[in-house]
Amino acid sequence: MSRMKAFVMPQVGSTAVVDKPIPEPGPNEVVVKTTHALICTSDVHTVGGTLPVEPGVTLGHEALGTVHALGSNVTGFAEGQRVAVNAVTPCFQCRYCQTGYTSQCGGPLGGYQYTAQRDGNMAEYFVVPYAKGNLAPIPDVVSSEAAVYACDMLSTGFMGAEHCELRIGDTVAVFAQGAVGLSATLGAHLLGASRIFAVESIPERQKLAETFGATDIIDFTAGDPVQQILEATGGEGVDAAIEALGSPITWEACLRVIKAGGRVSNVGYHGEHPEPLQVPLDAFGLGMADKTIRSGLCPGGNDRMQRIFALIASGRFDPTVMTTHTFAFDDVETAFDYMANKRDGVIKPLITF
Amino acid sequence: MSRMKAFVMPQVGSTAVVDKPIPEPGPNEVVVKTTHALICTSDVHTVGGTLPVEPGVTLGHEALGTVHALGSNVTGFAEGQRVAVNAVTPCFQCRYCQTGYTSQCGGPLGGYQYTAQRDGNMAEYFVVPYAKGNLAPIPDVVSSEAAVYACDMLSTGFMGAEHCELRIGDTVAVFAQGAVGLSATLGAHLLGASRIFAVESIPERQKLAETFGATDIIDFTAGDPVQQILEATGGEGVDAAIEALGSPITWEACLRVIKAGGRVSNVGYHGEHPEPLQVPLDAFGLGMADKTIRSGLCPGGNDRMQRIFALIASGRFDPTVMTTHTFAFDDVETAFDYMANKRDGVIKPLITF
Amino acid sequence: MSRMKAFVMPQVGSTAVVDKPIPEPGPNEVVVKTTHALICTSDVHTVGGTLPVEPGVTLGHEALGTVHALGSNVTGFAEGQRVAVNAVTPCFQCRYCQTGYTSQCGGPLGGYQYTAQRDGNMAEYFVVPYAKGNLAPIPDVVSSEAAVYACDMLSTGFMGAEHCELRIGDTVAVFAQGAVGLSATLGAHLLGASRIFAVESIPERQKLAETFGATDIIDFTAGDPVQQILEATGGEGVDAAIEALGSPITWEACLRVIKAGGRVSNVGYHGEHPEPLQVPLDAFGLGMADKTIRSGLCPGGNDRMQRIFALIASGRFDPTVMTTHTFAFDDVETAFDYMANKRDGVIKPLITF
Amino acid sequence: MSRMKAFVMPQVGSTAVVDKPIPEPGPNEVVVKTTHALICTSDVHTVGGTLPVEPGVTLGHEALGTVHALGSNVTGFAEGQRVAVNAVTPCFQCRYCQTGYTSQCGGPLGGYQYTAQRDGNMAEYFVVPYAKGNLAPIPDVVSSEAAVYACDMLSTGFMGAEHCELRIGDTVAVFAQGAVGLSATLGAHLLGASRIFAVESIPERQKLAETFGATDIIDFTAGDPVQQILEATGGEGVDAAIEALGSPITWEACLRVIKAGGRVSNVGYHGEHPEPLQVPLDAFGLGMADKTIRSGLCPGGNDRMQRIFALIASGRFDPTVMTTHTFAFDDVETAFDYMANKRDGVIKPLITF
Repeated sequence: MSRMKAFVMPQVGSTAVVDKPIPEPGPNEVVVKTTHALICTSDVHTVGGTLPVEPGVTLGHEALGTVHALGSNVTGFAEGQRVAVNAVTPCFQCRYCQTGYTSQCGGPLGGYQYTAQRDGNMAEYFVVPYAKGNLAPIPDVVSSEAAVYACDMLSTGFMGAEHCELRIGDTVAVFAQGAVGLSATLGAHLLGASRIFAVESIPERQKLAETFGATDIIDFTAGDPVQQILEATGGEGVDAAIEALGSPITWEACLRVIKAGGRVSNVGYHGEHPEPLQVPLDAFGLGMADKTIRSGLCPGGNDRMQRIFALIASGRFDPTVMTTHTFAFDDVETAFDYMANKRDGVIKPLITF
Repeated sequence: MSRMKAFVMPQVGSTAVVDKPIPEPGPNEVVVKTTHALICTSDVHTVGGTLPVEPGVTLGHEALGTVHALGSNVTGFAEGQRVAVNAVTPCFQCRYCQTGYTSQCGGPLGGYQYTAQRDGNMAEYFVVPYAKGNLAPIPDVVSSEAAVYACDMLSTGFMGAEHCELRIGDTVAVFAQGAVGLSATLGAHLLGASRIFAVESIPERQKLAETFGATDIIDFTAGDPVQQILEATGGEGVDAAIEALGSPITWEACLRVIKAGGRVSNVGYHGEHPEPLQVPLDAFGLGMADKTIRSGLCPGGNDRMQRIFALIASGRFDPTVMTTHTFAFDDVETAFDYMANKRDGVIKPLITF
Repeated sequence: MSRMKAFVMPQVGSTAVVDKPIPEPGPNEVVVKTTHALICTSDVHTVGGTLPVEPGVTLGHEALGTVHALGSNVTGFAEGQRVAVNAVTPCFQCRYCQTGYTSQCGGPLGGYQYTAQRDGNMAEYFVVPYAKGNLAPIPDVVSSEAAVYACDMLSTGFMGAEHCELRIGDTVAVFAQGAVGLSATLGAHLLGASRIFAVESIPERQKLAETFGATDIIDFTAGDPVQQILEATGGEGVDAAIEALGSPITWEACLRVIKAGGRVSNVGYHGEHPEPLQVPLDAFGLGMADKTIRSGLCPGGNDRMQRIFALIASGRFDPTVMTTHTFAFDDVETAFDYMANKRDGVIKPLITF
Repeated sequence: MSRMKAFVMPQVGSTAVVDKPIPEPGPNEVVVKTTHALICTSDVHTVGGTLPVEPGVTLGHEALGTVHALGSNVTGFAEGQRVAVNAVTPCFQCRYCQTGYTSQCGGPLGGYQYTAQRDGNMAEYFVVPYAKGNLAPIPDVVSSEAAVYACDMLSTGFMGAEHCELRIGDTVAVFAQGAVGLSATLGAHLLGASRIFAVESIPERQKLAETFGATDIIDFTAGDPVQQILEATGGEGVDAAIEALGSPITWEACLRVIKAGGRVSNVGYHGEHPEPLQVPLDAFGLGMADKTIRSGLCPGGNDRMQRIFALIASGRFDPTVMTTHTFAFDDVETAFDYMANKRDGVIKPLITF
């Protein structure tokens, strides 16, 4: 069989499952036979038209499976081996990559190749470019259902926490507890935060936040979350805040809730509102309060993937609690509809192949 | 004589020279007899009403002189010794100070005590609080005329460059070449930048920028400076940009002129316009371009003062080229008028006592 | 009552409980009435003659209690309030402190004042110098029995982990699981290590190590621990190693067990053997393997103390599991004998007052 | 013509110029026609037998020229274009590279491929592996005679300074002023050191050190250099010291000359003496003086090369002052003899093709 099914975007606003040829690997590439994938809110954004993509491009960037075919230059992997790849697949060799900004490979957001620059991986087979740097073996003790969270959610959320530059015992506020926000909460916990304020109104997500290390739940429907956190900290605020929603309101709340000397770490995607983000002068100390704003995009590469797998293997947390629904690939359009319309309290729908 | 003359602000919008008692040092303080001072644009802002201060407070925060009287707990200094103090005088012991944010001593901008929280030092005598940490001996080989630039201009400008987190050979753009911008240019040069774009239209300042290490002069009256710098860098932009003006226009230009992965270092004071600063989504990569915005306030403390003195002593640069005018203290009101109204191409007016 | 009992060292090799006057606080000091203290192996070293101290000096540097008397300059504390102080009490104002090396206050190891430069705090009352920066309030939810571990063990152990400069998911080996090594294990766990190899042969300590996050126990009596760890990591070694014993053998093992690019973090005290430590050229890559060796001394200050208290308050760990024995202060000499001679599997003996 | 001349090592202790086939580029490689090269002391060490290499391997790792042939995957370069490559040529994709330790590509010192793992580049043609990341275009304004110093000397020396983690105005001591030591002196100057002590006894090298920014020359034949530097710094020592000789004596001097909290940066090659390096306990504060020892190997990659070229282009320094002798490639054996036997005050002999 040389054909496969792929979940594509024929044009802005629509999706479909179509037949495509099974790809062949280039010399430095590997083709993976997909076994598990997650649908991402970014896919929804893409279908909504926020990203200029080729008509008919395959969607998806959170997937793993087994090695199907190895490029001629690729060594160290065996056919059938269980492997994963990050949503971001840098070349590692350009100047951006060499200076550590691998997500900006070749230029702004350039490490994000799936769907944006080539077919995504919500398909029965997919290509892993620069496989030496991007293809990650999955340890036996890590299930595929857990490992698939390293492709984007955990890597992005952990980055959110890493950009907080936490001292041991620092305090953090995380705005919104979707899958990325939950992962950011977990990241702050793993990196030594003491008190973690999780801002969220949905009870199921509040509970998951606590599972991942949140010490204080802030329900924004019960009052201004900035005020709530300031009161809980004796008026002082937190050392760092993570924006994990992508909204001008939570962005500004982050700037207001941190102390002088504090850090705002942005992981939210701000493509859904056209206006510039605002930096209020009082919250910013007129430009002199030693506040830092840090942004970023999911860090890729198989070193990071393997470090995340090692954390999962250590048993410190179970990312599969974020899987609220499971669908077979035949039902991927239903799954997408759940994600697009936030039906039934969906956090992440797992697709099995 | 137990009285002295002080340059004060009787109320918003006015200045005067008045008589005040010569201050007595507390146990941890030192009183300095002033010999040299510089007028700062911040003094102009303060008189304009941007800072809530006590009526009649003494202005000034860039001054040095000789030890007049030592507090009972202060050792290691001798009366008559030549000494300086930074514009920012932290306690070094509060939690903000302990975590390295000494300019935010006790809370936002709290390290800025002169004029804001106590009499400034544009007076014949002034107090140095927490003298063990703040009083800096001036080496014999460093003239007072040069040393006085360490009190604010060099420390602030160098911070602007430090916050750029430069790799050796990185490229930098510095927006505006007043005394702080010139010092930021110098700081970028001292910290290993290769190409430094100095954005400035005034020929005298352009020349000083070159003296301090600028490799490219960008005259914004000849076209959009962002476009000019992008063209000069093959469309790529710079690794870091320093905002040294305090304007929404240069703020936005900084965000637009840096590469993905680049840093914006804000040193400009944004108190003169009430609107929030804007972060355009395209320049910010929708929050995902790995861009960092860092703000700060002149770092104080006698360790930093002495490191700056050591740099001056090494002969690498001469800050006195920024002294465009010199006035006796009797003429301080004229000097202030020059600064307030930017008369005669003034950069920094030196006041001698 | 103006007299108190103090546990002192009359001369090298001997200890005694003697009467001393209750100290009076200087202007910037506070006198604390002791309620809980821990005996430290360093006290044993001191009595053994490793540190030049005044005859009759009071021993001890891990103690807390309630505020007894406030110096005239000290505000923000109330008599009777529960407070603690770190073993290291820096001035925060000297050049060493200003550059972040507070444990080296005034010069090498200068932040270590108790016993070394002034009476220690194994006494019914003790002085806290530079109280604004050193005196830490204990939150209600943190017991004194737990808080006393922040004075040295947790702060030192956490420093050991901090100096490893861990990326999330890095691997660490910790050599020796005494109270500092256990705290280093815990620190590595709190800072995001994935796999933590705890080198230890005593079963009780092995079990505590696992409680604190060790994933692999390496019993050095079962074979060379370096070989065991290399085998467990596919020949590659770990990202960082912590020396928590103070022995030339474990020092060298640390250098041998880390990868190229790895970090050795020394927290062990090497005063018991006179020979220089050795850096084998093969393990050091002839000086070119990008290996880093970092040393340090327990970081003090009430900011760090409060961050550690916040971590204890969050319920992530319980340091009191390291308390193997409890003695009344009347029995402090027995407790010291237990510590000096490692009787009955002692880890830390708690002294209550 | 399909044959070329290459300077090889037939066996330990001997060199020869032999005929070899002109290499063909693999898909990701480029073949360069050599125009300029420098002989390195490392070549002398290699011939002396310190490195296990293939008999007949080509020597040399500091060379540049013009593009001769491009591999099928390589874009962005044109035949005849002037290009250079660093002595270290990492893959950028392995886990060591991904975590920033590109010189340790694949394992200890693994980024050092020329001579060690493949033919070196002291030949009429040579291969550049992983050309996308390693092949660096040379700007028109940078001469080949200057650019060739970026291949090893400047990159290594600058790393020595970078590992000092200098604050602006810090003080540095650089032990030995050969080409790497001189480059380290220059690096410390470029990164903002105030006072730079250059330890050197040869007048020509002392003069070059001053040209590159040394403020104090320490002649070790006039007395213990540690004592001289301590005296010059009021007994306190320097913030950082760079070992640029590769000797146990200077290694120990570095540890002794830094303050508590200071950094030793090792760039010297310690392969010529078999004994372990020693860390004296007094200098090391018994393991508690917050001292850091950092080692490393010349950082490669075309990003760094281009940043160094940009610095040369800015006119801040002229590395060609280190070229004491020039030889045609026909005389490479004479040049090697000069280097091996340090004849005629040789620092670096340039080979032209």
